[in-house]
Amino acid sequence: MASETMASFTTPALKEAMAEVATAIDALFDEVLAVPDDPRAILYEAMRHAAIGGGKRLRPLLVAASAGLFNVDRHSALRAGLAVECVHVYSLIHDDMPCMDDDDMRRGKPTVHKQFGEAVAVLAGDSLHALAFEIAADPRTHADPFVRAELTFELSRASGPAGMAGGQMMDLMAEETRFDLATTTRLQQLKTGALIGVCLEMGAILGHVPPAGRKMLRAYARDLGLAFQIADDLLDVEGDAAIVGKATGKDAEAGKATFVSLLGVERARTQAAMLVDQAVAHLSGWGAEADLLRAIARYVVERDH
Amino acid sequence: MASETMASFTTPALKEAMAEVATAIDALFDEVLAVPDDPRAILYEAMRHAAIGGGKRLRPLLVAASAGLFNVDRHSALRAGLAVECVHVYSLIHDDMPCMDDDDMRRGKPTVHKQFGEAVAVLAGDSLHALAFEIAADPRTHADPFVRAELTFELSRASGPAGMAGGQMMDLMAEETRFDLATTTRLQQLKTGALIGVCLEMGAILGHVPPAGRKMLRAYARDLGLAFQIADDLLDVEGDAAIVGKATGKDAEAGKATFVSLLGVERARTQAAMLVDQAVAHLSGWGAEADLLRAIARYVVERDH
Repeated sequence: MASETMASFTTPALKEAMAEVATAIDALFDEVLAVPDDPRAILYEAMRHAAIGGGKRLRPLLVAASAGLFNVDRHSALRAGLAVECVHVYSLIHDDMPCMDDDDMRRGKPTVHKQFGEAVAVLAGDSLHALAFEIAADPRTHADPFVRAELTFELSRASGPAGMAGGQMMDLMAEETRFDLATTTRLQQLKTGALIGVCLEMGAILGHVPPAGRKMLRAYARDLGLAFQIADDLLDVEGDAAIVGKATGKDAEAGKATFVSLLGVERARTQAAMLVDQAVAHLSGWGAEADLLRAIARYVVERDH
Repeated sequence: MASETMASFTTPALKEAMAEVATAIDALFDEVLAVPDDPRAILYEAMRHAAIGGGKRLRPLLVAASAGLFNVDRHSALRAGLAVECVHVYSLIHDDMPCMDDDDMRRGKPTVHKQFGEAVAVLAGDSLHALAFEIAADPRTHADPFVRAELTFELSRASGPAGMAGGQMMDLMAEETRFDLATTTRLQQLKTGALIGVCLEMGAILGHVPPAGRKMLRAYARDLGLAFQIADDLLDVEGDAAIVGKATGKDAEAGKATFVSLLGVERARTQAAMLVDQAVAHLSGWGAEADLLRAIARYVVERDH
């Protein structure tokens, strides 16, 4: 899927890594979301609808790329990436609901509540959320319980009120209050940055790298996350809904401050490019093994969806 | 709170244990839900509204009682109980929403969506869900990473589609299909039984008891969970909404099969009493250290709320 819509500026290595991760994540979702032959079937169908066959799988790719720096077993990295993707997909399901962003389309398909109803959407999101931690804490993800406990701890922090959910709350407030650049930056660091950050962190955790050794990866993640969000804001203003796969122009409509409304299109674009350069600079201590992370950084600001 | 409304049949030891656990859980919630001085404040207020100062705290009490069999550090047991209670409270918030059970009152107060709006209710539930796993995986809960990973794994299974969320999905289907006794039992084993079961399991995990040594506790939990649900169904039919703290008669109104509609009031009451006897019988290998679990089993069918 991802490879068909990928623009030509992606490096062959990135293209290959993206396609491989996307295929592996779909296969893993297919396995953990096997539909039971009982009255819970619709719940699993709803989770599969949201989880399988779509999305850039940027987060699992980041886990795999980070894990690639530390000789981590590929299966462990993919399962950790699957856990993060569960959190990402759950957040999209809840975010699309009428009481939140009220979106009808996602990844070119009807959103879960449109297809299955709101009650099922609540439960499908909740189920994927729980599943994320089950996967992270599962001995099949990593043999070392210390690694499993740390994966779970960091992922739950990134998902909860001090991370993504906290950022979503700020996003709700942004409809009423006009946030300045500092507050908008903080909002995005929580809303999208925390989950991107934990992807890099997970690679290091799987590689038994202690927190003190993760400084450069954290710096990379912080710059990457903001660049990603600025690119998202630019797509919201300039993107083609058919390619982006969801409605565009929604933030402006809601009167929310975005990087584009605060900086203007030109300065936002310059800022994103600068952040990418900064992100790449944080990787200078690594050689070719960090090329995938470098390519991802270039990709996030140049993508068209 | 709990002690004021407790009926006279509770033993003094149970009364004391319930009051102690309720006080400790409130204090821990107060600590982990400290309101930040930023635009996320409302999210934390909503979580506090749902989490603090109410409820029987039956699940943390069960964790503490189970842990009491194995000389577990009290702080560890309470933190594990807090994690389960986070899952329980999150499920109530989402369950009360208009697209689910559509309830206006809970524990004698307006439900979260009534007080804070639906979007905040979604996020408050999601936040408490993430927080549950953060607490379970936190080194402050237990020093041994194996224990933390196992606590998290079992709790996520109990919360997800193979546990509570799966039971809630079956509950949605129960509005359309008339389930028989076997399917209703399965529904309740998932919807309320899984989380009650993990409470007993957590005490054993904290006590380093391997899975093979948890058989009797699992059997106790299974019988207790069903007895609890039958008692709940009886309260739904016969209870006083003012004492129960939420609307009653809702299942009959929705045309859902319950233990009471399937068995009738008298047989349901007999069945609950038999299950409690069975639950207590599973504890025969323990002495006085299991008296609290015995008292809890008697309590769950005799409570009036």
